[in-house]
Amino acid sequence: MSELLGVAVLGAGHMGADHVRRIDRVVNGARVAAVADPDTGRAKDAVAGIDGVSVHAEVAAALDAPGVQAVLIASPGPAHEEALLAAFDRGLPVLCEKPMVPESAGALRVVEAEAKLGRRLVQVGFMRRYDAEYQRLKSLLDSRRLGRPLMLHCTHRNVSSPPGFTSAMLVNSSVSHEIDVARWLLDQELTAVTVLRPRPSAGAPEGLVDPQFVVFETAEGALVDVEVFVNSGFGYQVRCEAVCESGSARIGDEHTMVVTTAGGAREEVAQDYLVRFADAYDREVQAWVDATRRGKVTGPSAWDGYAASAVAEAGVRALESGGRVTVELAPRPDLYA
Amino acid sequence: MSELLGVAVLGAGHMGADHVRRIDRVVNGARVAAVADPDTGRAKDAVAGIDGVSVHAEVAAALDAPGVQAVLIASPGPAHEEALLAAFDRGLPVLCEKPMVPESAGALRVVEAEAKLGRRLVQVGFMRRYDAEYQRLKSLLDSRRLGRPLMLHCTHRNVSSPPGFTSAMLVNSSVSHEIDVARWLLDQELTAVTVLRPRPSAGAPEGLVDPQFVVFETAEGALVDVEVFVNSGFGYQVRCEAVCESGSARIGDEHTMVVTTAGGAREEVAQDYLVRFADAYDREVQAWVDATRRGKVTGPSAWDGYAASAVAEAGVRALESGGRVTVELAPRPDLYA
Amino acid sequence: MSELLGVAVLGAGHMGADHVRRIDRVVNGARVAAVADPDTGRAKDAVAGIDGVSVHAEVAAALDAPGVQAVLIASPGPAHEEALLAAFDRGLPVLCEKPMVPESAGALRVVEAEAKLGRRLVQVGFMRRYDAEYQRLKSLLDSRRLGRPLMLHCTHRNVSSPPGFTSAMLVNSSVSHEIDVARWLLDQELTAVTVLRPRPSAGAPEGLVDPQFVVFETAEGALVDVEVFVNSGFGYQVRCEAVCESGSARIGDEHTMVVTTAGGAREEVAQDYLVRFADAYDREVQAWVDATRRGKVTGPSAWDGYAASAVAEAGVRALESGGRVTVELAPRPDLYA
Amino acid sequence: MSELLGVAVLGAGHMGADHVRRIDRVVNGARVAAVADPDTGRAKDAVAGIDGVSVHAEVAAALDAPGVQAVLIASPGPAHEEALLAAFDRGLPVLCEKPMVPESAGALRVVEAEAKLGRRLVQVGFMRRYDAEYQRLKSLLDSRRLGRPLMLHCTHRNVSSPPGFTSAMLVNSSVSHEIDVARWLLDQELTAVTVLRPRPSAGAPEGLVDPQFVVFETAEGALVDVEVFVNSGFGYQVRCEAVCESGSARIGDEHTMVVTTAGGAREEVAQDYLVRFADAYDREVQAWVDATRRGKVTGPSAWDGYAASAVAEAGVRALESGGRVTVELAPRPDLYA
Repeated sequence: MSELLGVAVLGAGHMGADHVRRIDRVVNGARVAAVADPDTGRAKDAVAGIDGVSVHAEVAAALDAPGVQAVLIASPGPAHEEALLAAFDRGLPVLCEKPMVPESAGALRVVEAEAKLGRRLVQVGFMRRYDAEYQRLKSLLDSRRLGRPLMLHCTHRNVSSPPGFTSAMLVNSSVSHEIDVARWLLDQELTAVTVLRPRPSAGAPEGLVDPQFVVFETAEGALVDVEVFVNSGFGYQVRCEAVCESGSARIGDEHTMVVTTAGGAREEVAQDYLVRFADAYDREVQAWVDATRRGKVTGPSAWDGYAASAVAEAGVRALESGGRVTVELAPRPDLYA
Repeated sequence: MSELLGVAVLGAGHMGADHVRRIDRVVNGARVAAVADPDTGRAKDAVAGIDGVSVHAEVAAALDAPGVQAVLIASPGPAHEEALLAAFDRGLPVLCEKPMVPESAGALRVVEAEAKLGRRLVQVGFMRRYDAEYQRLKSLLDSRRLGRPLMLHCTHRNVSSPPGFTSAMLVNSSVSHEIDVARWLLDQELTAVTVLRPRPSAGAPEGLVDPQFVVFETAEGALVDVEVFVNSGFGYQVRCEAVCESGSARIGDEHTMVVTTAGGAREEVAQDYLVRFADAYDREVQAWVDATRRGKVTGPSAWDGYAASAVAEAGVRALESGGRVTVELAPRPDLYA
Repeated sequence: MSELLGVAVLGAGHMGADHVRRIDRVVNGARVAAVADPDTGRAKDAVAGIDGVSVHAEVAAALDAPGVQAVLIASPGPAHEEALLAAFDRGLPVLCEKPMVPESAGALRVVEAEAKLGRRLVQVGFMRRYDAEYQRLKSLLDSRRLGRPLMLHCTHRNVSSPPGFTSAMLVNSSVSHEIDVARWLLDQELTAVTVLRPRPSAGAPEGLVDPQFVVFETAEGALVDVEVFVNSGFGYQVRCEAVCESGSARIGDEHTMVVTTAGGAREEVAQDYLVRFADAYDREVQAWVDATRRGKVTGPSAWDGYAASAVAEAGVRALESGGRVTVELAPRPDLYA
Repeated sequence: MSELLGVAVLGAGHMGADHVRRIDRVVNGARVAAVADPDTGRAKDAVAGIDGVSVHAEVAAALDAPGVQAVLIASPGPAHEEALLAAFDRGLPVLCEKPMVPESAGALRVVEAEAKLGRRLVQVGFMRRYDAEYQRLKSLLDSRRLGRPLMLHCTHRNVSSPPGFTSAMLVNSSVSHEIDVARWLLDQELTAVTVLRPRPSAGAPEGLVDPQFVVFETAEGALVDVEVFVNSGFGYQVRCEAVCESGSARIGDEHTMVVTTAGGAREEVAQDYLVRFADAYDREVQAWVDATRRGKVTGPSAWDGYAASAVAEAGVRALESGGRVTVELAPRPDLYA
């Protein structure tokens, strides 16, 4: 296909506008064909200066607009299920921001609808799979050079949490990245979860259980522990150490420029996920565009989106109960075998 | 005191012989005055070429030998209680290798006997407190520059376990170091313990639960997690990251010489605890000799020895039960306030 | 401009074919409109599967082909001068691979021709300026947070040199990157050069002076030293430490994934400049496309290309003479002030 | 020998007093038997609280004092030659602080006097040879695992220079350590030296040529470059990278505790050589005591002391002349073969 892939972007908020910019100015082989947002003023702002884009208040209108060949869903999570099903009706390939569907029941409906179609249309926006360091780690684990993985030790720290961030969101928003990454790196499902609660940091807002220490068990007996600390004050740090039978591998100790001044040698720590994972977002969307133009669907599937939601729900119950909660997954359709 | 401190060394096995060498050739201000071992041939070998040392089969005879002013206990753990009480009878200061007394009941009897004396005579051989990196971390935590500590993430890996090493020994021998270090770094008791069991490594002997992931809770609500993996195959690695309210600090990523050859940049990892902690052993014994010559007792106390045993026992029960076990400590005598 | 920028790529060898791929599949906002190579078979191979590209044996034909709006020169160095002047005749913006013109006399003719036009058309392909680490270092130096830079210590190592690589090429091909980077980072000209010759490595081909140690002096009294070692055997390493009045900063110790196995902790070292600087090439071409579409010319100028050639020539004379050689530059036209 | 080695310490200034403390409290197997200093009050202060030490104004009286079996010279450099010859007269083994004798002519007289005795009595105080990192590097180079060494890149930075520090002292005091280390690591003489002078740092006192960049050539064609920067403002940094035919090895990037706080991950940099090399001083004196008690002389020889002085003198001439200066050494007596 030499023609540019026409993409409808649903949602013109922070993330949607950023994807519009990415498709227009960074990614090769695609163009923004339509944008939908209930706030059409915001949608117009997002596409200012871009030719050939139609602006819509309704999802359906955007999907049916001239030139639309694929859909990027960046609207709020609760709107995803309807948008996904609308895309299925039209046979349009979709890149859907995470969470695919916030409630696992809705996520399962999407899985079942896609399974009924009999072909994959959805790539879920777990962009860490497109990060160079994670890919290197994945490649090492898959090679089995270090034997079988036994444990993943993960760290997920933010400078501070946004207003309204709840204790449950540490699990179902922050840790959802580690849930997907662990499933992908280990190539197995997470089967149980326990959430430990150290005394909250004085730097956390009143009432927020922060940090938390989340321990997952997997189908083949590995352990995944995650320190999640969203008011750490000191930076955006995402690290992962895989401990295997004959070696360990660690990523995330960013080490690009070492500056030595009075008092010590210092390395910068990224303050923001958009800085740390900027390249991963670019590669994610490029990979989706490239695959779509070849008529393929690759990357994290609707099943991955569903499983992440189900594990996150179990995690929130574990946080609330203080005990160990098992993860119950529906049978996996053959489409995702 | 300008005269050298005369030390009776109890036990002439691997550790005892190493302490004889250390006192004779490394430490300033002390000399080996007597050695006791049921195997007197072994004791004679240990002191070959050293003048002025008497060799004994019995502990009592060594303690009463001419020139003995202090005792270093390096005999097997089950012999410690009797040796400690014999030293108490004679008012001799003691450096006692860990575990002070393997069973917490016996350890408590030692605590009570010392409390009755009304003055400290015992320093327990938790040598990590004398390691330069741990001391730097302790000093940073005590300064509260990073705020209150919330979590410690610990790694304890050996190349391989010796014959006869049991699943319980991962907790009560290997992790006992982390138990002491955590109590010391955080300056609070450990109150509960859970032991998680990932599927054992193919590199572990049949039947050994290795690795284990041990999670402690503390009196003030901190968490301490320890990966213990005694058949890691790749080295002796002891790391500790303290996560505090406004920063984190990590030790144990040895980084002395970086060698770059075809394929990568490599740092050596110590293969043995005697290499990693050689300086700590030297400093520990030197500190004990220096304090003893000044008539002082410093360092880890009999209470520390007792608490470590009690926590380790709870850990073994947690390993066996699969659940969370609380630690029950006797009241702390005023002597150790 | 919403239309894609039509680029004529001159040269379809290794580098040219890679740029064709980059424009077709990676870069946003451009397309390959024409390719020229005396070997038209090779040119056809390079554009197989790309629509709308014309293939030519002659440069002039490619520049005049329909849809050509800009030129990327990736032909052999000796062909650059003629191609550049042909582009000037047509007023086409150019991205010219390094060396802009191998001989400084020819490079100066290009400078003078562009100066006569009175506007910049040329960006020279010094891609390190687009590397994220170098950009971070540049930004730090420009901020003067560490005071004035006093010295740059540079390392430039390859696994092995290709057949036919001469001692002079260590200076005028390998070190030419450091020549540009030093001029750019320090924002001043290099004024003298000395080349020291340690005894050659046993791993270097017979007769090749490898490694070399090159020392540059700058107009404001800074020093730049470069270890260039093209048969190091162990990897592609490019490092730079800037020593300033109140601190130092170092880049190039890649540190992405640390793998610990028996014997040590290892980080991978890139084996190839295309791996190390892949992102820099992508960003360089993207920056050129973006600027060109806005009607701008940014990045390294023809003057930078000329100065690099002049310094490299002085370096080769210094290698041959064993002494210090001063760099003589023509007056800088106002266009490059 | 079970008796403690009686040491006469010459000089009770900063360094002498530190050695008195070291022998009294740190080192095993020795005691301070006598101290000499023209300022006997200072000498008395240095030995306060130590039994069995005699205090003298004159060197000869100290050497002849009861119990003196060995000499540690820590007086000012100009006093060393006479003290060394006095020790030779009495057949006493000597540990002599660096520089052995400041002027190479005097150093050569010491060499000749010792050669005439026909046996070594002198160990020169180049303590870096006792630093664990340097020893690891030496051991790696000697193993030839990386092939032959081709270059050493050295860094020597101080926070600030003491009052009265001259441009020549950067070479003959600071760099004298690298001179010895390079001769020892490479096991060959330095044959020529060039000193390059970047524009001085604004942080250096008026008139001081700081930093300097010193390049040595060796007898077998290796290069040794040293950045010496004594008013760097940011710490005491001593690094050395050995570049060999099939790999490189680097020491001196201290990496003990990594502290992450807002803005970055930080490692402490030592501010003082007594911190960085404290262990090396202890090991140096212990090694000397141990060897002396066994009737041996090991460590850096009088020849090493002489060669260091001769190379440093050439370095100062190179600094003054701006050119390359060859090092002329007297023939090496067989005693030092």
